[in-house]
Amino acid sequence: MAKSQALQTNMDVDYVVVYRFLKTDKTKAVEQFEKLVEALSAIGLQTEVRNGDSHSVLLFVRVASDEHLYGEVYRSRVRDWIHGVRAAAPPKETREALEAEPLYESERLRIIYQLITNPVSEGGAGITPKEGEWEGVDSIFALHDRAYNADWIKKWRSSFFLQTEDLDEIRNRFGEKIAFYFAFTQSYFSFLVFPAAFGTAAWLFFGHFSALYGIVSCLWCIIFTEYWKHQEADLGVRWGVRGVSRIEHKRRGFQHEHITTDPITGEQVGIFSVQKRLQRQLLQIPFAVAAASVLGTLIATCFGIEVFISEVYNGPLKWILVFIPTGILTTTMPILSGILTKLATQLTDFENYETHAAYENALTQKIFVLNFITSYLPIFLTAFVYVPFGNIIVPYLDVFSLTVRPFAEHEKQLQSPGADWTINPDRLRKQVIYFTVTAQIVNLGMELIVPYLKREGTSKYKKFQSERTAKNGGTSPAPSVNDPPEDAAFLERVREEVELEVYDVTTDIREMVLQFGYLSLFSVVWPLTSVSFLINDWVELRADAIKICQNMQRPTPWRADTIGPWLDSLSFLAWLGSLTTAALVYLFSNDGLGPDGTPANIRAWALLLTIFLSEHIFFVVRFGIRIAISKLSSPGVQKERRDRFLVRKQYFEENLKGLERLPKLKEVSEQITRESLEEDARRSSLSESTAEERFWARQRGLRETVSVGKDLIQRAEVEKSQERKKEL
Amino acid sequence: MAKSQALQTNMDVDYVVVYRFLKTDKTKAVEQFEKLVEALSAIGLQTEVRNGDSHSVLLFVRVASDEHLYGEVYRSRVRDWIHGVRAAAPPKETREALEAEPLYESERLRIIYQLITNPVSEGGAGITPKEGEWEGVDSIFALHDRAYNADWIKKWRSSFFLQTEDLDEIRNRFGEKIAFYFAFTQSYFSFLVFPAAFGTAAWLFFGHFSALYGIVSCLWCIIFTEYWKHQEADLGVRWGVRGVSRIEHKRRGFQHEHITTDPITGEQVGIFSVQKRLQRQLLQIPFAVAAASVLGTLIATCFGIEVFISEVYNGPLKWILVFIPTGILTTTMPILSGILTKLATQLTDFENYETHAAYENALTQKIFVLNFITSYLPIFLTAFVYVPFGNIIVPYLDVFSLTVRPFAEHEKQLQSPGADWTINPDRLRKQVIYFTVTAQIVNLGMELIVPYLKREGTSKYKKFQSERTAKNGGTSPAPSVNDPPEDAAFLERVREEVELEVYDVTTDIREMVLQFGYLSLFSVVWPLTSVSFLINDWVELRADAIKICQNMQRPTPWRADTIGPWLDSLSFLAWLGSLTTAALVYLFSNDGLGPDGTPANIRAWALLLTIFLSEHIFFVVRFGIRIAISKLSSPGVQKERRDRFLVRKQYFEENLKGLERLPKLKEVSEQITRESLEEDARRSSLSESTAEERFWARQRGLRETVSVGKDLIQRAEVEKSQERKKEL
Repeated sequence: MAKSQALQTNMDVDYVVVYRFLKTDKTKAVEQFEKLVEALSAIGLQTEVRNGDSHSVLLFVRVASDEHLYGEVYRSRVRDWIHGVRAAAPPKETREALEAEPLYESERLRIIYQLITNPVSEGGAGITPKEGEWEGVDSIFALHDRAYNADWIKKWRSSFFLQTEDLDEIRNRFGEKIAFYFAFTQSYFSFLVFPAAFGTAAWLFFGHFSALYGIVSCLWCIIFTEYWKHQEADLGVRWGVRGVSRIEHKRRGFQHEHITTDPITGEQVGIFSVQKRLQRQLLQIPFAVAAASVLGTLIATCFGIEVFISEVYNGPLKWILVFIPTGILTTTMPILSGILTKLATQLTDFENYETHAAYENALTQKIFVLNFITSYLPIFLTAFVYVPFGNIIVPYLDVFSLTVRPFAEHEKQLQSPGADWTINPDRLRKQVIYFTVTAQIVNLGMELIVPYLKREGTSKYKKFQSERTAKNGGTSPAPSVNDPPEDAAFLERVREEVELEVYDVTTDIREMVLQFGYLSLFSVVWPLTSVSFLINDWVELRADAIKICQNMQRPTPWRADTIGPWLDSLSFLAWLGSLTTAALVYLFSNDGLGPDGTPANIRAWALLLTIFLSEHIFFVVRFGIRIAISKLSSPGVQKERRDRFLVRKQYFEENLKGLERLPKLKEVSEQITRESLEEDARRSSLSESTAEERFWARQRGLRETVSVGKDLIQRAEVEKSQERKKEL
Repeated sequence: MAKSQALQTNMDVDYVVVYRFLKTDKTKAVEQFEKLVEALSAIGLQTEVRNGDSHSVLLFVRVASDEHLYGEVYRSRVRDWIHGVRAAAPPKETREALEAEPLYESERLRIIYQLITNPVSEGGAGITPKEGEWEGVDSIFALHDRAYNADWIKKWRSSFFLQTEDLDEIRNRFGEKIAFYFAFTQSYFSFLVFPAAFGTAAWLFFGHFSALYGIVSCLWCIIFTEYWKHQEADLGVRWGVRGVSRIEHKRRGFQHEHITTDPITGEQVGIFSVQKRLQRQLLQIPFAVAAASVLGTLIATCFGIEVFISEVYNGPLKWILVFIPTGILTTTMPILSGILTKLATQLTDFENYETHAAYENALTQKIFVLNFITSYLPIFLTAFVYVPFGNIIVPYLDVFSLTVRPFAEHEKQLQSPGADWTINPDRLRKQVIYFTVTAQIVNLGMELIVPYLKREGTSKYKKFQSERTAKNGGTSPAPSVNDPPEDAAFLERVREEVELEVYDVTTDIREMVLQFGYLSLFSVVWPLTSVSFLINDWVELRADAIKICQNMQRPTPWRADTIGPWLDSLSFLAWLGSLTTAALVYLFSNDGLGPDGTPANIRAWALLLTIFLSEHIFFVVRFGIRIAISKLSSPGVQKERRDRFLVRKQYFEENLKGLERLPKLKEVSEQITRESLEEDARRSSLSESTAEERFWARQRGLRETVSVGKDLIQRAEVEKSQERKKEL
């Protein structure tokens, strides 16, 4: 009972700061710790310290009173307003501002996090985990809300579609960035229902490589991509974050070449020359080429070996040897990917971006290139190299015979069968099925089960170690020895959370985008692709929820108004799909047999024309769909309009009322008294009166203008009638 | 002397309202005139009436005092601020607002024009020229500033490049919309210097249809288009209009289906169903098809006749008969274009757009389609039909023999020469030269000389007529009879300006965009194209200035932050250029001879591949250039930053100072007095204290946290050293 209660409460803790002192010298560690506590107190945070695992202490902080948050809240809201995220400026009295718009949980946590990490000059404590002076600060994280998490997972388990309110909940708890991931996946999941149904029909009735399926699939990709952009904007307004991506956050790692005084703000700012960055950015080209060749060579080699073993080799142990390439790939690929990803990160660091957004963008592009190669190149090789050129290439695959030579009984088993060899028309389909079913399941399993096993393993190992230490009569006590019994269960839980990994939502977004790629690029090969994805994503959404709640530290709630640079990848994949789908449909138009390994069967101009037309129809249709979708009204758009209207109304009301009191012109001009007439006569008689004055003095007031005008009109009328009479 | 002075002064007149009563009945005319004067007075305008030409009166208006403008200025500025055009909200006291930022001339005129034409509900006089109740109001225009105009033209005559300050002047006088046209043309003109130089070099040294020239030309098109977008944004900030295109102006012609109450503003608003509009918009497709077939048939027929006469016909009068098709085109084309333009306008009216911007956009698209066909189709026919398929088509041209049959002496002169006939390889070049030199000159002449002749003619005719009337003893006096002698010259000038046409800047923008099209699509045929355009545009810029000053009424100064939908046409033409240039370079790669009339000479796959590659290289390069240009800093961007910074600073300063007075946490927490300790003890002993309270009560204040933390660290250190000892 006590324990379960301890698991429910977070003891009002806002953040846990983990301070490690394993590597630092004792005096220094104490000194630095004191500094840390002082810095946190200075910004209005109350502190409590407890013992942590393995040479660390846990510093619990909470905001002493809401008043201490005002400054940061106000700063954040003014910044939002300047960048157009908010329609109205926040009231100048912060207390009022906060009463009118109370903070929601994730906003509060974000504000506190910013308060802790922002530079001192901007009113923060300037604590930068694992960096510079604050190297001892291992991490800063909030505690999970167990009760909410349990409810969340329970609720999702029993529902098929998520409602916007469910997303609102995530946004309130974990911030907009993570909520956008779930919104995107949910939207993608709902959209999948249609291609799953249509795909099944196509699979049953339309035959192989159906052009109709291809067209519908491309259309679906466009609609989904464009609709998501619309929905993103809508959710952005709903959550009040539309435009936050325009707010630039300085990147901490940015290194300036020299310092100048900003002519605008008068601040000292670091400058890094654009030319120099451009030069560094050009390194991306050799990097992409190198990455493509390294990964490409590996994949092509394994592909070659696999083709050789499965379709040329004819000796013993074939059933097991055929897994050699898979073995090579699964062992070397993660290592290579890891190295290349690290290189990409270093390259992006080297490019030295000033803002966080630019950095993210540059990194995402590189990561996308890497993922593109590893995910899609094998299928590209089969579809556009093996199938059309198989007969030409296979004889050259003899070089791979050395991989299986030891197992062969005689040379003949290693020789290509020559003219009677034909390509395996089923290979492409099998490969697509592998990537869209098997690989997805494996991936999901890895995501859920591996961290679980890891966690279990670590805790077993720790238990074992402490038991061993106890046996040896060691003095190293468990960190919980000094815990007050009342807090013990709570502290144990916190120590567990300290050990968890940090959640990175972009990994999950990337996974979804790559999945979308299979659908847009190759689903025409096997129309059931979307059925597999539909099932997979239902589980994925729930699995991710569980992952965040149980396998990861509570993520710091960041704001976002988009899924970020991945949106471009999505558009890119949809576009590329229009090319590959057209090419595949054309190549396999002979009842799904394909060019059968001999390129002579392909009419190049017809293939090119198909691709060319398909691409341009794609552009036109996308343009049309964009316009159609932009016409859709949505709650978000309406909310934006309302906000604007209210602000305008308030301003008009406050000010234009004063104007009503202005004397009307009529009254002014018609006060023709004797004095004014005399004054007039006097003035006009004076020689100094200008031509302008005399011009405007001829008709005094509107009545005179009217009567003169009447006269002119009537005289003209008279002339007209006279003329008419004459004509008669 | 008096006359020249009269020509200089505008008598402080802000606007001239021309009121005609030819068709209306006398009493009604007088009544309506009275209403007009009253409406104008009600919004604070002073009026003077004078006689006008042919059954009209001229109503001169000026603002009685600046205070009467406040309301509209304030309304306009609040609207700007809400839409993000201004960084800061205008001060709530309008007088202050206007003192801080005085109006410039075109802004003042725009505000007054809006005051006159805006609906009464929005604080205007609701006068809508030529519409509904105000049918008698023929036009509302400001008077030309003769002195400025003379200076302007004089200055431009002697300068080669225009400076930004010259554009600022135009903006101050004629408003941003016209200034943007001049800025665009000026920017285009400066950019032309490079292709003119490179084109000359290509013409001299690179031979026919140089691929290098093609690449450079496409690159130039991209850079110009993208750079202009950048410059547009920059000028928008400079002129403080960035984002005004986002402000939606209700279109007056909009007709609602039904009226509902707006849930947001509570106003009664007219609704027109989106579906219905979409259905109507679909009519664009048959319209475009019909326009294309009508114009296309006409052009193709004339083309056929021309080819027949010039290359097949061999009889007498050939030298004159060859002009038949040109004759047909020059007579029927303007009529057809006129009809189609009118149809396009009606179709756009029928589509019933709610906002002015949407209407303009839709109309521009249609006009662009029409212009595209009339401008470029003839060259397309030559390049992609005549040259590759000439030998196949020419025999079928016999049908056109009937056009010249009467002149032929015997049948043989009408028969195609059969196998020995070859296409005229020079035709394409000649045609491009015709469109890029001859037609441009003719066009320029039409723009300048025709209105001049028209004006002269009208004034001659009027003189003649009044003389005749006088001879016949007619009573119709010149309108100037009643003029005060002092104002006579001024009024005569005003009457002249009443007769002038209304300037429409989009016509001029369209002309420039179409010219750009020749450059992007066909300049590879004749690289000297840009030299011709460079000369033409120097004159064009000056001619347009003269046109606005002398041939047109002073245009109402509208705001804009872009050249509008023509920007899309520009991008479209640049893109299409990447296709046509590649196709032309490939087709004529045999030393400029081309496929020589027989399509068998073309390898279709190679042609398609060339186009495909060229297009995709175009996309990639454009992407790169966009990014590079977006990195450019500019005065505009800096100004925007400064504005934002200042507003933010002001807000922070006004409010965050108050926060400094908040008691620091340190001081609060360390006031451990005896009383508070006792209170504490009492509270912790009470059973109601919660776990949270007890958790946070263990360390009171930062000093206690520090000392406990110190203790924890030191103890851990001790353990560590003990362990280490053990290990040793």
